[in-house]
Amino acid sequence: MGVSRQILLLSSSTVHGTEYLKYAENEIKSFLKNKNVQRILFIPYALQNHDEYTDKIRSAFVKLGYEVDGIHKTSDPILALNQAQAVYVGGGNTFQLLKSLYDNSLLEPIRKKVLQEGLPYIGSSAGSNVATVSICTTNDMPIVYPPSFKALGLVPFNINPHFLDADPTSKHMGETREERIKQYHELPDVPPVLGLREGCMLHVDGDKATLKGISGAKLFDPSKGASDYEVGSDVSFLLNIQ
Amino acid sequence: MGVSRQILLLSSSTVHGTEYLKYAENEIKSFLKNKNVQRILFIPYALQNHDEYTDKIRSAFVKLGYEVDGIHKTSDPILALNQAQAVYVGGGNTFQLLKSLYDNSLLEPIRKKVLQEGLPYIGSSAGSNVATVSICTTNDMPIVYPPSFKALGLVPFNINPHFLDADPTSKHMGETREERIKQYHELPDVPPVLGLREGCMLHVDGDKATLKGISGAKLFDPSKGASDYEVGSDVSFLLNIQ
Ligand SMILES: [Ca+2]
Ligand SMILES: [Ca+2]
Repeated sequence: MGVSRQILLLSSSTVHGTEYLKYAENEIKSFLKNKNVQRILFIPYALQNHDEYTDKIRSAFVKLGYEVDGIHKTSDPILALNQAQAVYVGGGNTFQLLKSLYDNSLLEPIRKKVLQEGLPYIGSSAGSNVATVSICTTNDMPIVYPPSFKALGLVPFNINPHFLDADPTSKHMGETREERIKQYHELPDVPPVLGLREGCMLHVDGDKATLKGISGAKLFDPSKGASDYEVGSDVSFLLNIQ
Repeated sequence: MGVSRQILLLSSSTVHGTEYLKYAENEIKSFLKNKNVQRILFIPYALQNHDEYTDKIRSAFVKLGYEVDGIHKTSDPILALNQAQAVYVGGGNTFQLLKSLYDNSLLEPIRKKVLQEGLPYIGSSAGSNVATVSICTTNDMPIVYPPSFKALGLVPFNINPHFLDADPTSKHMGETREERIKQYHELPDVPPVLGLREGCMLHVDGDKATLKGISGAKLFDPSKGASDYEVGSDVSFLLNIQ
């Protein structure tokens, strides 16, 4: 048994009408205060332009009092990770993000640092998808082919970020989000899926998991079906899935 | 140079408020009359329950005067394909469909039959995605891991079925369809993407390609950007992409 894991998974970096990370500001600050974090290692792989993305993230975090280093600027990403005080994995395209993590041999090192040494991990959108068992419940287009859909496995279930309830007035015939998740759950040996509505965050502190933010989540269980959880709900039972 | 290819790619099997394939009925009949087709080989791999799916498709096609065989019921799928008068590849999950085509070693045989021997191919939704260069612009969740995203390549570009124009009043922060396609086009050596709105079909008759149905398409070109095409447009230039 190592140090307790410290994970904060955001559905989205932004909610409509507010600045980048604004809705999550207080949660992020209290999450990072715990370990006295001052610098954040940013992983920009989910978008193509790493410099531009890092600049955007830097301006958001500087306002909160943190310094930001882009992992793509370091000559040795694994060393950078080993020296990091906290890591932030930003959103974009989940396939691109996961493929780059594989290309840079970062999956096992991140898993080890977070699960065994308690490195604080913040993920948003695609950065939340890759924190889970697999990226099988991303909303993104498969623009690049990663060597596997298996992800970091920091929690024993999957997440669907930007979860959207079906619009009963819609005339669109493409599958609803819920139908897509149900198709996934027709397969054998697949984990539950936590649909995080925009503005919802999952906070994992050791063996305790709590929903934070300004909106709730919908849990899809392969055998038990769907159930709603409000902000503030204790969902620690999700951490005990075998 | 073989016989001319005969391909009909539907954005969706259904438009809001009508029966399965209803909006495409006349187009399908005139497409199949050409080759005097009476039986259709159905590929139900995009959904889990092949029997149920085949029954549904059979009742739709029986009304139009065609018999339907499910390829999953044959002991030798490649033989069934070689004896087929026409093939219909239904929608569902694109990853599952493509993986099953690979698992059954059907990609090369289908490509050969359609491109060299003129076997009529009808695809809908996921069945249209797999007819193109790759499934990189599907809307589906990656619920299973195919050995490649490379698809049949019956046409030299990609399709985005169920194409949806951005809703300017939406408060959702997930990427719009157009943003997702643009992220794809930031990569090197990727083909144009034809966004087929629901109710749109692409008809390929040899070297001639035409938009049919009740709504148009939006073409995304990696270098030239986006342009709209109405129903009836001749888009044969798309077949000349190298
Ligand atoms: Ca995304
Ligand atoms: Ca689909």
